[in-house]
Amino acid sequence: MRTCYSGLVSAAHLDQVVTLFGWAHRRRDHGGVIFIDLRDREGLVQVVCDPDRAETFKVAEGVRNEFCLKVVGKVRRRPEGTTNAGLISGEIEVLAHELEVLNPSVTPPFLLDDENLSETVRLTNRVIDLRRPAMQKNMLLRYKTARAFRRFLDDAGFIDIETPMLTKSTPEGARDYLVPSRVHDGQFFALPQSPQLFKQLLMVAGYDRYYQITKCFRDEDLRADRQPEFTQVDIETSFLTETEITGIMENLIRYVFKDAIDVELANPFPRISYQEAMTRYGSDKPDLRVTLELVDVADAMKDVAFKVFAGAANDPASRVTALRIPGGASLSRGEIDGYTEFVKIYGAKGLAYIKVNDVTQLNEAGLQSPIVKNLSEASLRTVMERTGAQSGDLIFFGADKAKIVSDALGALRTKIGHEKGHVDGRRWAPAWVVDFPMFDYDEEDKRWVACHHPFTSPKDEHLEFLETDPGKCLAKAYDLALNGWELGGGSVRIHRADVQEKVFKALGIGDEEAQLKFGFLLDALKYGAPPHGGLAFGLDRIVTMMTGAESIRDVIAFPKTQRAQCLLTQAPSPVDEKQLRELHIRLRNQVKADA
Amino acid sequence: MRTCYSGLVSAAHLDQVVTLFGWAHRRRDHGGVIFIDLRDREGLVQVVCDPDRAETFKVAEGVRNEFCLKVVGKVRRRPEGTTNAGLISGEIEVLAHELEVLNPSVTPPFLLDDENLSETVRLTNRVIDLRRPAMQKNMLLRYKTARAFRRFLDDAGFIDIETPMLTKSTPEGARDYLVPSRVHDGQFFALPQSPQLFKQLLMVAGYDRYYQITKCFRDEDLRADRQPEFTQVDIETSFLTETEITGIMENLIRYVFKDAIDVELANPFPRISYQEAMTRYGSDKPDLRVTLELVDVADAMKDVAFKVFAGAANDPASRVTALRIPGGASLSRGEIDGYTEFVKIYGAKGLAYIKVNDVTQLNEAGLQSPIVKNLSEASLRTVMERTGAQSGDLIFFGADKAKIVSDALGALRTKIGHEKGHVDGRRWAPAWVVDFPMFDYDEEDKRWVACHHPFTSPKDEHLEFLETDPGKCLAKAYDLALNGWELGGGSVRIHRADVQEKVFKALGIGDEEAQLKFGFLLDALKYGAPPHGGLAFGLDRIVTMMTGAESIRDVIAFPKTQRAQCLLTQAPSPVDEKQLRELHIRLRNQVKADA
Repeated sequence: MRTCYSGLVSAAHLDQVVTLFGWAHRRRDHGGVIFIDLRDREGLVQVVCDPDRAETFKVAEGVRNEFCLKVVGKVRRRPEGTTNAGLISGEIEVLAHELEVLNPSVTPPFLLDDENLSETVRLTNRVIDLRRPAMQKNMLLRYKTARAFRRFLDDAGFIDIETPMLTKSTPEGARDYLVPSRVHDGQFFALPQSPQLFKQLLMVAGYDRYYQITKCFRDEDLRADRQPEFTQVDIETSFLTETEITGIMENLIRYVFKDAIDVELANPFPRISYQEAMTRYGSDKPDLRVTLELVDVADAMKDVAFKVFAGAANDPASRVTALRIPGGASLSRGEIDGYTEFVKIYGAKGLAYIKVNDVTQLNEAGLQSPIVKNLSEASLRTVMERTGAQSGDLIFFGADKAKIVSDALGALRTKIGHEKGHVDGRRWAPAWVVDFPMFDYDEEDKRWVACHHPFTSPKDEHLEFLETDPGKCLAKAYDLALNGWELGGGSVRIHRADVQEKVFKALGIGDEEAQLKFGFLLDALKYGAPPHGGLAFGLDRIVTMMTGAESIRDVIAFPKTQRAQCLLTQAPSPVDEKQLRELHIRLRNQVKADA
Repeated sequence: MRTCYSGLVSAAHLDQVVTLFGWAHRRRDHGGVIFIDLRDREGLVQVVCDPDRAETFKVAEGVRNEFCLKVVGKVRRRPEGTTNAGLISGEIEVLAHELEVLNPSVTPPFLLDDENLSETVRLTNRVIDLRRPAMQKNMLLRYKTARAFRRFLDDAGFIDIETPMLTKSTPEGARDYLVPSRVHDGQFFALPQSPQLFKQLLMVAGYDRYYQITKCFRDEDLRADRQPEFTQVDIETSFLTETEITGIMENLIRYVFKDAIDVELANPFPRISYQEAMTRYGSDKPDLRVTLELVDVADAMKDVAFKVFAGAANDPASRVTALRIPGGASLSRGEIDGYTEFVKIYGAKGLAYIKVNDVTQLNEAGLQSPIVKNLSEASLRTVMERTGAQSGDLIFFGADKAKIVSDALGALRTKIGHEKGHVDGRRWAPAWVVDFPMFDYDEEDKRWVACHHPFTSPKDEHLEFLETDPGKCLAKAYDLALNGWELGGGSVRIHRADVQEKVFKALGIGDEEAQLKFGFLLDALKYGAPPHGGLAFGLDRIVTMMTGAESIRDVIAFPKTQRAQCLLTQAPSPVDEKQLRELHIRLRNQVKADA
């Protein structure tokens, strides 16, 4: 067996004969001597092959990049001036006594040090890509992060219980991945979108505290931060209130960040209501490091001549909002055009703004903007006072349906905040977002839909709104936001069958449909279900944030592309007709079967 | 929050006021006082509701089995003579000051104490079934077992890395579960039968030591110990020999048994060759607690008149074997008939036997059996000497194709061993079975098939047999047997592309087919793949053995039936036509779509 990992040989091994395994990271001839940087998962060590040892030297001459090697040699101090403080092995080198090629390598498709690889090249050659030290660091950090979650949860009495992968399709929420049944002709399993119902059943069954780090599946069109299969840290507990649950969960997250990347997060995490988050930041997962804030000014715009503002100001479903950029009067025309294009991604039709050249003159002399002449002095005064504008600032406006304004100006706030340095200097800014509404109104379908999921408990004092005014009903739901990302979310669940039935009713889910889809949950609630609640964290995203990677694909060993393909194994792929026959299915488009 | 779990209230809490949550396990009136056994996952505590506290008493009167309760009360010593040494809380009881029904329960479908429930009833009402203390113990033990695996592997430098669930179908070995792709018309993912190829790729990528506790899937007809989805502790390591790998693995298993159920397994585990295991025990996972052994006697039967024996004795693919049952001459005719029926399950046509009434008379006078007259005295002498027969014994015989004899007499050996007490008294008897052959000859398809899988390395000294005599080629493969079950198995893998190609050739897998199915592995082997090997343990089976449960379904929270159905959620189930259209598939048998 080896003495230790190559990357861990150090001055502590001086004068010892060590046995090492690894890969030739680099090989170079220098003054008749051959140097091989031997690499393994823990790092590099310099191996010296001297021509005096003819046999070893001859083997060394044949070594090329990525050859797999066994080295036996003596650890000695590096000559003065050649030490490398960046390596654990930086003070020493290994004089090879024996060198064995365990396996040669053809020339790799790219150099491991190359920083400019296309993602397609990397994913096609994922095995070589995974040898890159950056990827090894990511995989190791992912492991340490998951391990930290487990350790905390183990110590806190949570039990890891496995829930099924082959489950029932409930076409609600995202699209299911389906699995045809061979035994049951015409029937299908679905891969779980989350273990939500099973973890609730485990609470009803009295397991009290549950967790699982498990794969979930959603067959949706992919964005940069989504994968068809993703990993969730799934947690549920009984007999605790919303505050008690979020209290344990923030202890958990603090532990994980400390253990995995040695970061001390704030204690406690600030809590803001959904309403406040939307009003001030235009987002339910605000980046609180950004110091810019939205300010609503609809009340001052009801009678102005500028129809875009006045129209929105008089529509209860709309929002008129100002975003002050300190010093923003110096923004170039090009920059402002760029931001205008940017907000269009979120459905905004344009981006009105005022350059505040002289805040004491509330007219076209002091304020530079095509819209000023259509705004009253009173309305302008309100804007300036409420935003706290100073000469030299710029104010952007959003006026449209509330969702469009929040999305557009919320995203603009974050973008300008980071681009122009309107940030408070913190590296990590966690916050609980609480008091979510129970329901959103779907204008298209003309019905209420669940903001979280239909098993979320309403606030006790809002129970009556379920029947009278669902829009007013707040939920015992909470999300954990970090730097503008949602790390996880959850809720206290409904534990009373009668409340669950009322919520289904508010959602327009009839008794029959409820029984068909969720009968087993409704049944379970009748047998003394305990009060319970929980949360799920997205592991891929948390690790992505910790590493600073650009994509969650950089923290997944074998990810899918945005077209849901594995470039390494070429999955998905066509299958034999015999397999389809056994599953009682056929292709709709036979012609494409062997495409 | 609660003071502690109900099951953990003890004399240490005497005179304290405690807050408890749980379920009414039993309620009884006794002398005008109401006693409630409050149950949670840690056990029971006795709650006393006194009529003096009218409000609490009134609530208690309404309590029925499985009501979910909150209790605030004072811990006091139980009256003398009423303590219960079987409970942690057995010395105390809680005098209720407050009693709150958190959720009532309708009458449960069965009593939790009922030991005679059909499995269908249990699986249909799984949530209630999971409340039974026996099931809670099983789930907790499963968790502790998985946690013990993780702890050992974490400490030994193994990294948990997730491999994909949506992978490529390689119709080899068992049947795949398929997942139609929405994005790629006519193409399918497969759920993994094991992460075999991915873990090998991780070794090639330099991760050195990998593990994962993960779900695997096989769409096969189910036996008592099989599930469509099952959990594997999957392990792989680089740069170690067969002996080094099995050494670490048996340390792991010893740790897990000690940690989870406080059992000290043998150290070291005995090692027996596949050949010896088959010869002596007729099984590659022998139950070594059974003291009975098979003895081959073909050489003595080549010329006997009894055609069944002589025919098999002269066929190199057959086996003639004796199994001595000490004292077996007292077996009844009915018992022998029963064993004869039993061996037919394994393909045996009958079960010849000799009752040894007097071992000194090797003829029909001393030996009671219809076959004695057709056996020579020399052959009978060989049988008696080799088996060590004594007067009063019985000898069973198997004579048929080797596999049938081994299966039939191997199973009979175990059955009679346990039924008649021919066991050595050990509770646990682990053993490594090593030196497996690389290939089995498939008589039907007239070709060699891999005994383990096609990535298993041949013994170094047998490389040449790959081309000359595959049947002689032994593999660096090892299985861990315990009490007649296979706990896990693995091998050193092939790390050289040229050897892998030779093995594919021996298996009749052409270059094109190999490239199509395993191209990504063959490619990876070319880039300095390290020597590597590993193993996978079946978690479900290990926990089943630890609990002594009858079925692995008793250690899985939400298992499938033997018809691959979830009786709780009614999965699989029909799906919407829209879902099928999106996946570019249709049902073959439309009429059954809504069956």
